[in-house]
Amino acid sequence: MKRVFKDTTIITMNSNRECYQDGGLVVEDATISKVGRVCPEDLATADEVISLPGRVILPGLVNTHVHTSQQLARGLGDDVSVFTWFYNRIWPFESHMTEEDSYISTLLSACELIRSGVSTFAEAGGQYINGMGKAVTQAGIRGILTRSVMDIGEGPMKMLDPVEKLMASQEEMLDLWHNQANGRIKVWFALRTLLNNSEKLVLKTFQLAEKHGVGVHMHLSEILEEVEVIRKRAGFSPVGYLAQLGALVPYLLAVHAVWLSEEDINLLATHDVKVSHNPAAALRVLGFPKVTEMMARGICVGLGTDGAPSNNRMNILDEMWLTTLLHKGRLHDPMAMPAETVLQMATIDGARCLHWENEIGSLEKGKKADFVVLNPNTVGMMPVHDLVSNIVNSMHSDNVESLVVDGLFVLKEGKILTIAEDDVIKESGERARAIAKRAEIHLTPRFPLC
Amino acid sequence: MKRVFKDTTIITMNSNRECYQDGGLVVEDATISKVGRVCPEDLATADEVISLPGRVILPGLVNTHVHTSQQLARGLGDDVSVFTWFYNRIWPFESHMTEEDSYISTLLSACELIRSGVSTFAEAGGQYINGMGKAVTQAGIRGILTRSVMDIGEGPMKMLDPVEKLMASQEEMLDLWHNQANGRIKVWFALRTLLNNSEKLVLKTFQLAEKHGVGVHMHLSEILEEVEVIRKRAGFSPVGYLAQLGALVPYLLAVHAVWLSEEDINLLATHDVKVSHNPAAALRVLGFPKVTEMMARGICVGLGTDGAPSNNRMNILDEMWLTTLLHKGRLHDPMAMPAETVLQMATIDGARCLHWENEIGSLEKGKKADFVVLNPNTVGMMPVHDLVSNIVNSMHSDNVESLVVDGLFVLKEGKILTIAEDDVIKESGERARAIAKRAEIHLTPRFPLC
Repeated sequence: MKRVFKDTTIITMNSNRECYQDGGLVVEDATISKVGRVCPEDLATADEVISLPGRVILPGLVNTHVHTSQQLARGLGDDVSVFTWFYNRIWPFESHMTEEDSYISTLLSACELIRSGVSTFAEAGGQYINGMGKAVTQAGIRGILTRSVMDIGEGPMKMLDPVEKLMASQEEMLDLWHNQANGRIKVWFALRTLLNNSEKLVLKTFQLAEKHGVGVHMHLSEILEEVEVIRKRAGFSPVGYLAQLGALVPYLLAVHAVWLSEEDINLLATHDVKVSHNPAAALRVLGFPKVTEMMARGICVGLGTDGAPSNNRMNILDEMWLTTLLHKGRLHDPMAMPAETVLQMATIDGARCLHWENEIGSLEKGKKADFVVLNPNTVGMMPVHDLVSNIVNSMHSDNVESLVVDGLFVLKEGKILTIAEDDVIKESGERARAIAKRAEIHLTPRFPLC
Repeated sequence: MKRVFKDTTIITMNSNRECYQDGGLVVEDATISKVGRVCPEDLATADEVISLPGRVILPGLVNTHVHTSQQLARGLGDDVSVFTWFYNRIWPFESHMTEEDSYISTLLSACELIRSGVSTFAEAGGQYINGMGKAVTQAGIRGILTRSVMDIGEGPMKMLDPVEKLMASQEEMLDLWHNQANGRIKVWFALRTLLNNSEKLVLKTFQLAEKHGVGVHMHLSEILEEVEVIRKRAGFSPVGYLAQLGALVPYLLAVHAVWLSEEDINLLATHDVKVSHNPAAALRVLGFPKVTEMMARGICVGLGTDGAPSNNRMNILDEMWLTTLLHKGRLHDPMAMPAETVLQMATIDGARCLHWENEIGSLEKGKKADFVVLNPNTVGMMPVHDLVSNIVNSMHSDNVESLVVDGLFVLKEGKILTIAEDDVIKESGERARAIAKRAEIHLTPRFPLC
């Protein structure tokens, strides 16, 4: 199957950051075979020619931190203390989810990802990789799935287990799902947070990740309490502690990375650890991470939405805008975080965070055909004096016209082709209410009901 | 004309904050005649009955600070210094606009306002009230129009004039446009900023505003330089200076109010000055205003988007989300800015900022029929455990199904009825390019073009 997309603006995000006006893209099956100018021969030999005047093609966006299993808990933990969020809302909710709930939750999450132009996401760690894997297979996007593991402290009741059991279950899921769905699904190891992870679990995780050649997804230096507890427990900062254990490695994706000392940043840079920045969650509850400082040290930083109850939007387009705002505001410098840097974080650097940059993150010959077709002709995005800035600062989901992943349309001209969206919305509401009921979570209405 | 809206959730934002599930709203011509439960007699006597199951009706949102004349400059001042923003981008752009440009710019702005559920906005001050007035008349929404005036310092070249001429032109516009379009248009006086306004101009403005019984719209304590210059020029902070002039009055809308001392906050509270908070502009360039502290002192704070080149979204839904995030982040407290407070700012407190709370800002018998019909059944907003939180934190323009202003649909089931949206988008692009060309503004492409 050979498809030619033509008459369109193309932002490649390749190493030279080349763009084409009135350009073209040739896709053969799942792979890009040409970027830039199409010739008469391409058109003559194509099975399909798609003309996209006035549109813009950019690489599929990468969301490096998503809790798909928390999608049904959107709004359950708003305007409450961190304690209430964990103990009375999210842990009970996650504890009462079934594998089928996880499947529907991931489908709903996938719809929001697709509509925001995300072709690849990294799961923060739910309980049911089978549920997630089934949903991602159907959705047609790429996902790195993980099971969230913890062996000490408190957390969702079903997640705490002895190390051996946790490692066995993750290896089992790796066997089952890694490289499935035409390679769209990968399985990584995950650590929830050092507050919940023993030294034995951390060591075993990195040992097995190395053995299997996959990455480790981990919340790190997320909240101040974590820094205090680990300093007391181990005598180091969380980052310093991982360094001592030999666990600062290039295939570690450290999520949030808020409470870092200069020395911590040095350690992350030296060991080429990747960082996932989640600006909404940072503003809402965590604190302001030193992202520009990390990037100045050469640390690769991608963007993430976190989970719905921490944000409450799972929309990477909003996170792009927020990334520019947060760091301009934090440093009181309107030049602190330019749009081209943010677009890099949401595309090629996101791919690097997931060790997937050989196949995705930019539009180049030989890479996978993952791309967004955006229509800038809306009242929220026009006029376009500065296309890259408008993409980062003004674009909304209504500008995402189509999304191609692995050479196939998952969203075409505004319609999701892989998921019965209305059915999922309806079932999500029903399941969300049922889980909250089982978990005995009751919210007090904010306004009186008549 | 009597219309009944029924079978819907209603958030009134009245003084008791009452909500109705499966409720109804009766509208007679431009006025609400009943809120809550409709009876058989209402249905029998109605000209039209509209059933809205699964939908939510809330008051039309109020955007208290909009530069409609900067809409065509979206993206023109991104990632540059404040100096460049003013001198090389926005002032030249505004200086080269015509009245017809202002008309189209305001139409484009009105489309974005309508799609974000805004029924009423306050103009920050453009040059051409005739252009704006024509557009607002057509758009069908409410607007408080102002001409931005300045008599000292530097600014857009056509805006600087002697005090007498400035006051005469504003009074002329007041005569022409105040209370026009069935009362949907009001005209206020405006002061651009103390950096550009002499003492004589300030005094004359407040004198005439009092004489005509209208308000004054003014950027105040916006940037640190303003505080420094006024302290040097007058010996007071900007707020303290206005207090000395007797210009701190309840009908002053102070926009941004970022660089305030405790004493400044006391003064604003004592004199019941209203404040417009623009969180995106605050993060992007201005600094973090003490909004929660102001509200704790009883100051009425509304929300605004500012202009497109300062944000770059003119979407009050994004500003609501950002308001929760900014103040939670600033105070590192997830309970600092609850959703119900933000919804209050975007509705009834916005109306109070504009001295229009007797007619708009809440759904009550006798008030104008200005309301949003929102459809929460999208992948970005579902599930709904906490409706008010989802409205503030998750809602996007795609949830705004209809907007009624003054009893008439301006947006119905996703279609703007008052403006030929596609034509305006097209013409906006052409005019935006033409103005930038006349103003000799050239942006360097962020990425190389092949």
